[in-house]
Amino acid sequence: MTHLSSSTLTKLGEFGLISRISAGVCTHESVITGIGDDAAVTELSSGMQMLTSTDMLLEDVHFRRCWHDPYSLGRKSLAASISDIAAMGGFPRWALLSLALPSDLPLDFIDDFMRGFLAMASENQVVLIGGDTCSSRSALVVSVTVMGEQLPERIVRRSGAMPGDDIWVTGTLGDAAIGLESLENGKTVSDELILRLLDPTPRVSAALALAEAGLATAMIDVSDGLMADYGHIAEQSGVGGRILIADLPLSDSFQRYTADLPILPCHFALSGGEDYELCFTANSSDREKIIDCIKKCGIEVARVGIVTSCSGVTAVHRDGSLYIAQADGFNHFK
Amino acid sequence: MTHLSSSTLTKLGEFGLISRISAGVCTHESVITGIGDDAAVTELSSGMQMLTSTDMLLEDVHFRRCWHDPYSLGRKSLAASISDIAAMGGFPRWALLSLALPSDLPLDFIDDFMRGFLAMASENQVVLIGGDTCSSRSALVVSVTVMGEQLPERIVRRSGAMPGDDIWVTGTLGDAAIGLESLENGKTVSDELILRLLDPTPRVSAALALAEAGLATAMIDVSDGLMADYGHIAEQSGVGGRILIADLPLSDSFQRYTADLPILPCHFALSGGEDYELCFTANSSDREKIIDCIKKCGIEVARVGIVTSCSGVTAVHRDGSLYIAQADGFNHFK
Repeated sequence: MTHLSSSTLTKLGEFGLISRISAGVCTHESVITGIGDDAAVTELSSGMQMLTSTDMLLEDVHFRRCWHDPYSLGRKSLAASISDIAAMGGFPRWALLSLALPSDLPLDFIDDFMRGFLAMASENQVVLIGGDTCSSRSALVVSVTVMGEQLPERIVRRSGAMPGDDIWVTGTLGDAAIGLESLENGKTVSDELILRLLDPTPRVSAALALAEAGLATAMIDVSDGLMADYGHIAEQSGVGGRILIADLPLSDSFQRYTADLPILPCHFALSGGEDYELCFTANSSDREKIIDCIKKCGIEVARVGIVTSCSGVTAVHRDGSLYIAQADGFNHFK
Repeated sequence: MTHLSSSTLTKLGEFGLISRISAGVCTHESVITGIGDDAAVTELSSGMQMLTSTDMLLEDVHFRRCWHDPYSLGRKSLAASISDIAAMGGFPRWALLSLALPSDLPLDFIDDFMRGFLAMASENQVVLIGGDTCSSRSALVVSVTVMGEQLPERIVRRSGAMPGDDIWVTGTLGDAAIGLESLENGKTVSDELILRLLDPTPRVSAALALAEAGLATAMIDVSDGLMADYGHIAEQSGVGGRILIADLPLSDSFQRYTADLPILPCHFALSGGEDYELCFTANSSDREKIIDCIKKCGIEVARVGIVTSCSGVTAVHRDGSLYIAQADGFNHFK
């Protein structure tokens, strides 16, 4: 219905586009029928339950085409849902991709987007098994569903945190928020921080290692900020938490950038979203095992607080004073 | 990021909206963890393979808010993907729903949309297990994924048609196309035809009956028009087909409406999309069994042609002359 310029999608047509997209798709023995029938047919591993997560990304809401190169956008579109499967301790397996394409989108953009999407898929042993394509009258819309699997006893939910458990996070926090801040304000910042925003890495191997060792009592990925995301663990576990600000893991680039800012650095680390690190809780007797387990995956892990029996999540400065939140994570309807 | 008017979504917030959406959700023993964690956890029935399909619906591309009441839109958003699972002979089981909501959308619209979506879910024993919500700067976007299951030997693909098989369709064809034509041209038409467009019924029980009896050699749902959709069966089965125009099942309302049109009625029945009837092929020795099997589901079935060994799909008038296609189904990028 939307008229696309003759140089791009019109010539190719819907089925030409689907062929182009599916040309680079790898397969796997778990995929019985992939792209091309009414539905994909897949087979779960014996004894495993299915994990499913979905994310929608809209141009000018979740990303801007002037900031986000198509290759990284393809990677990030898939990374967000893979991260959700990882946060349950699951093996990501299969993906669906739906695209609504505006008329001014060059074919090169789609090719580069797909290269990024399929590279992220391949790095995580995920197979693209289906999707939908249509024209859009305005924004580019990307909708991704990822399905995974895990043995029932290894699945890690948000609801298992116990008072006295430690609160841990992988990697470093706040980098993606600084990346966003610098892009929004046109400031110069290290590529590392921009990449954390535009091309995040889902922590699949660390999450699987924790799940297989039975070490995490609850887990979530940090997509809306640590305070908000640990808040979900606290709410669903019926507990509270105290975050120790001095223990937050901050990258060197983060510390250099925030040294000159009028805003407290911890704001970005506590309330900035899109780091896609793991936040998990674990029994305090498992500290050494956890450090060992995560370091084997080549990433850092930091103990940042403690699960409390009283409700409410607080962040505490070294001098004992409370951090007053300037935002409680990203809310789409605020 | 998008600013929504204070009377609608802003007050509610993202998590308030999710609570509102999930309030009416039923569950099922196959759903271990539904809405509210990083990913949903579900369990397949013993020995079954998973079926997955996804559809994206954009305002002013797939639907118009001035035509489509929110209740029917909710129903149709889910019906399209359920129909895909049915067309594989599968049991639809679980759904994911992602919504990008424009700022002018009243809460009543969302409530009515969800009532329709959940009514369609309930009628088909489908459970809503997750999704995503965000704000949209322009169009309403709906993305639905439906997962289902079936025993491997009962799954019906597009690829099994054999030369000499009959071609069958359920119900009547072209009604939705007439509904669309009348809305686009402001013509008066019976409610029945409008409803076929706005609130189609996926043929789940008929498809399951065919799959369980092992009667269909290939199957697809008619979403892009019979010529285009049977064309997919022909292509994937490495066969052709001859459709007998005189045998196309046409509703009384369709025949009354098209009697006065300058366009041949068969155009709507052959090339009009969105009827969501089943098109399937079957061995000619199974004719009586098929009629018996489908009639038990309370719908009609008609034999409309024959699978040929030579490639190419043709439609033939009673006098033997060929139908020259005026369109070959809906192509989003034409």
